[in-house]
Amino acid sequence: MSIPIVRKVLEKNERAAEENRALFAARGWTCVNILGGAGCGKTTLLEAVIPRLRESCHIAVLEGDLATTRDAERIDALGVPVVQLLTDGGCHLTAIHVSHALDHLAVEDVDLLLIENVGNPVCPANFDLGEHARIALLSVTDGDDKPSKYPLLFRTANLVVLSKSDLLPAVNFNTEAVSHDVHRINPSVEIVLTNTASSEGFDTVTHWIRSLDSLRARCGTVSVH
Amino acid sequence: MSIPIVRKVLEKNERAAEENRALFAARGWTCVNILGGAGCGKTTLLEAVIPRLRESCHIAVLEGDLATTRDAERIDALGVPVVQLLTDGGCHLTAIHVSHALDHLAVEDVDLLLIENVGNPVCPANFDLGEHARIALLSVTDGDDKPSKYPLLFRTANLVVLSKSDLLPAVNFNTEAVSHDVHRINPSVEIVLTNTASSEGFDTVTHWIRSLDSLRARCGTVSVH
Repeated sequence: MSIPIVRKVLEKNERAAEENRALFAARGWTCVNILGGAGCGKTTLLEAVIPRLRESCHIAVLEGDLATTRDAERIDALGVPVVQLLTDGGCHLTAIHVSHALDHLAVEDVDLLLIENVGNPVCPANFDLGEHARIALLSVTDGDDKPSKYPLLFRTANLVVLSKSDLLPAVNFNTEAVSHDVHRINPSVEIVLTNTASSEGFDTVTHWIRSLDSLRARCGTVSVH
Repeated sequence: MSIPIVRKVLEKNERAAEENRALFAARGWTCVNILGGAGCGKTTLLEAVIPRLRESCHIAVLEGDLATTRDAERIDALGVPVVQLLTDGGCHLTAIHVSHALDHLAVEDVDLLLIENVGNPVCPANFDLGEHARIALLSVTDGDDKPSKYPLLFRTANLVVLSKSDLLPAVNFNTEAVSHDVHRINPSVEIVLTNTASSEGFDTVTHWIRSLDSLRARCGTVSVH
């Protein structure tokens, strides 16, 4: 009973994702979808990489949430165009959400569109938004069993960020075991440790985003600040 | 298009939840549904309260996960009957999952059935499993904006647990603001801080579970150990 329903939803999403992909290609935009559980540090990652990237790229952001505009306000404070997408209880963004949000983005001069998905390690991984790349976040405070427990999130990621690494001494998190588990399901994916206390890893993430083919072609190879 | 589909899923779930509720009533079981994001400490809460409750109650556990039997193994190590429910990518437990799992629970002599839902702060809150009470967890490492961002989780909770409170000095988490936000959407709900370093709060949670009407009627008012 439920399988045809799921298929219909995903087929509809896939069509919209293809349309988004075509639109991004036509406009020359690079789109990065940022996924991870609630509180894993997605907005904080944006706050760290946007100032590092904006000198060479025009950036816009879509913020996905069930409720509140708190994250969009944090991005707006950086002076970057942002649209808050509220799903009204929905647990993930769809390509259709993104398509509607693009109508509300008042700028056309964009090189890099960063999409922060709904805080949920499960459902967002099922929905292609038409993005060029995915970044999956896991906070070290959330436990080293998560790559095995949420395989799709890590399997579909192009970059894995282990956030809040300054708290490693305070928690029981085996970074080596996590790297092993992640590479078991996604052998070649790069894994970066980050934290805001020392800014560890944010230059690496910035460099990784900047090295995406479509963005490099557009924004050049300016060195990381 | 999508609304009738959601309604159908929820209606089917509601029928199964009513059947579970009738079964629990007939058998005299009290059922508690434990919800929260990935890594917020649901299994750890079970590991703390089960030894405190088992002297006066017969306990069984259903563990919900997308993949792996890691959590069930942790409960099995306590010598408590446990069934691992794998959703194969599904982001929440349904009452139908619970109904099937009950067929695999080899014991009938149960006073308290504890269900650990899939680690996800969004979808599980939509699905009644037939439980008597819900406990919602939030780790202080996951940020104090979460009650506003995931209102249904906190609105439908009968008890709110703020876990990993030993990490409060290391993170930016305003407990007073969170209590205010939680009580704005769920005015009378009790909020308990817990952590495994000092065992703060676990006696309170144990006492709260033991005070549930249907359980008190069955297991008496033995004092907390």
